[in-house]
Amino acid sequence: MSSAALNLTSQVLDLAQALPLDGGQQLDGVQVAYETVGRLNPDKSNAILVFHALTMDQHIVSPHPKTGKPGWWAKSVGPGNVIDTDRFFVICANVLGGCMGSTGPASLASDGQPYAMRFPVITIRDMVRAQVALLDALGIDQLHAVVGGSMGGMQALSFAANWPQRTRAVLVIASTARHSAQNIAFHEVGRQAIMADPKWSGGDYYGGKGPDNGLAVARMAAHITYLSEEGMHEKFGRKLQDRSAKTFGFDADFQVESYLRHQGLSFTDRFDANSYLYITRAMDYFDLAEEHGGRLAAAFAGCTARFCLVSFDTDWLYPTPESRTIAHALNAAGAPVSFVELSAPFGHDSFLLDVPALDRVIAGFLGQ
Amino acid sequence: MSSAALNLTSQVLDLAQALPLDGGQQLDGVQVAYETVGRLNPDKSNAILVFHALTMDQHIVSPHPKTGKPGWWAKSVGPGNVIDTDRFFVICANVLGGCMGSTGPASLASDGQPYAMRFPVITIRDMVRAQVALLDALGIDQLHAVVGGSMGGMQALSFAANWPQRTRAVLVIASTARHSAQNIAFHEVGRQAIMADPKWSGGDYYGGKGPDNGLAVARMAAHITYLSEEGMHEKFGRKLQDRSAKTFGFDADFQVESYLRHQGLSFTDRFDANSYLYITRAMDYFDLAEEHGGRLAAAFAGCTARFCLVSFDTDWLYPTPESRTIAHALNAAGAPVSFVELSAPFGHDSFLLDVPALDRVIAGFLGQ
Repeated sequence: MSSAALNLTSQVLDLAQALPLDGGQQLDGVQVAYETVGRLNPDKSNAILVFHALTMDQHIVSPHPKTGKPGWWAKSVGPGNVIDTDRFFVICANVLGGCMGSTGPASLASDGQPYAMRFPVITIRDMVRAQVALLDALGIDQLHAVVGGSMGGMQALSFAANWPQRTRAVLVIASTARHSAQNIAFHEVGRQAIMADPKWSGGDYYGGKGPDNGLAVARMAAHITYLSEEGMHEKFGRKLQDRSAKTFGFDADFQVESYLRHQGLSFTDRFDANSYLYITRAMDYFDLAEEHGGRLAAAFAGCTARFCLVSFDTDWLYPTPESRTIAHALNAAGAPVSFVELSAPFGHDSFLLDVPALDRVIAGFLGQ
Repeated sequence: MSSAALNLTSQVLDLAQALPLDGGQQLDGVQVAYETVGRLNPDKSNAILVFHALTMDQHIVSPHPKTGKPGWWAKSVGPGNVIDTDRFFVICANVLGGCMGSTGPASLASDGQPYAMRFPVITIRDMVRAQVALLDALGIDQLHAVVGGSMGGMQALSFAANWPQRTRAVLVIASTARHSAQNIAFHEVGRQAIMADPKWSGGDYYGGKGPDNGLAVARMAAHITYLSEEGMHEKFGRKLQDRSAKTFGFDADFQVESYLRHQGLSFTDRFDANSYLYITRAMDYFDLAEEHGGRLAAAFAGCTARFCLVSFDTDWLYPTPESRTIAHALNAAGAPVSFVELSAPFGHDSFLLDVPALDRVIAGFLGQ
């Protein structure tokens, strides 16, 4: 479908004011790169803000400019689709700290040099704050809904907790209200892999070759957490890659090795290693209860929005108990919430893949 | 307790003959470093061979020569202990491919230079074959038992399948009959982390500084798989390390980060990176059914030994279904087997930690 038929726009907003950050600093000259699909109605009441996950970006429908692959949620967002752009105006913005047009560590600081590790450590709430500024610029007071999976779900929760009057509905898929010790541990492995790469050079690699090897290892480790053990067994098992017997060497004998190496290498073509450091750090810092006196229900005290929470039975990154904890807190806060655990074989990645039951939940919840 | 009181010896055996390998090669001049505890009785019927796990070694009771820490199973092996050396003669050998005295990639080849990556890729069965040669040298025809946890359990299974008459009992703890796609994937991340470190230099780093950064990352990734999510939550949660607030930086703010970094760094003091490559490869290649026509029961066709299998409910590296698969195969082969899943909070590492129920199973099974 053509961009015109989709009513697709791709823009960059320059924030008029400095962005205050949870770390205490202010960031000047922030840009927010975003894509919109569909038409905003006259009373600006049909907008849905979709928050992206760790390695995604604003290209929710349009092809990725570096890989040429379809937008990461193109199957779900469009005219007549699960998120129906004949009815809704969908906004998706690259997160603060990202590397696809929004201000991040690769952006130029006021001295004309990339921030690199001078970029301030940001939080999930900082990412949301930048997107609230985008809503302000678009003149949208209240959204029909915020939607997000994984890190997108964290942003949706942060939005609901901190800007409760600005949305009528909150859809959180395969997410969590706080990063667990195991979540932090996996991210720390990735960060150490990047920082151990001599080409990282303390983050000052712009203009030259970056820490591709380290970033690839980080991606490989993370990617395992996105798949279920059963899913990997079904897809790969112990099948060999283009060979009839083991080679008794260190080539990628097994398909799963070849697949992971490809995931690692291809990631380095489209992602900035420093962005990976900053975004994983923001996720690790995320603890919605801690931001509200240690009580998760307190985070939702001012909420009048409807909530829908979805988890997947094979997701071991943010397993169902994480969503259940959120549901209990919403119940305690008296917020209307529906919560469903869906069965899907793909692990955490189910939120991005073909799960018809998820489509029904999304369409049903947003259609109200 | 003194070495004399333990009847502890530490020796290195030079194999008299070349060792045939599953890869088709023969390895000359193989050395097997081993420790014994207790006294071999006159009819040589009281010996127990304990196989060690991936990063352990022959120092089952004696302090580790590099770290000074107690032997890895010192709490369980000794006079009056769970494995009672007043009664049994315990043998533990460093695996082929290891780095604590048995022949491995750091050993000198016939040209006087370290093998490095010229070392042949070995299998779990090759490791066992070297230890069978040790039993031959000791004149032990039949063991009272073979015992092993994790990779040690793989060796115990391989021993039982390939040398069925040489033991009367087989105890396998927290192990598997084949490495799964997820198991292979985690090992591949570790190998790529090592090989991505420029100091790895194609394996030719002996005499200089090795790929410590890569090896540390490999260890960090692996270490996560040894712990349970619940255990990490109990032990670390989101507790901060020696600070009262997040630093908004990339230091180890969280205790779990600090712990993992320490695990990674300290590992490099005691382990050779090339050994890590070869041993993980051997584990990934392990598929006992495949070695026996694709049918696991066929692997145990000639077995007359008693078997005991133990799994842990929080072990997600080699979860209970892996042990159940082995139990079913043993049943199909008509071998006597007891199988128990124990409850313990420590994940895979439970086999090394304080689990009284495990002690009772071991003492009960070996005492028969």
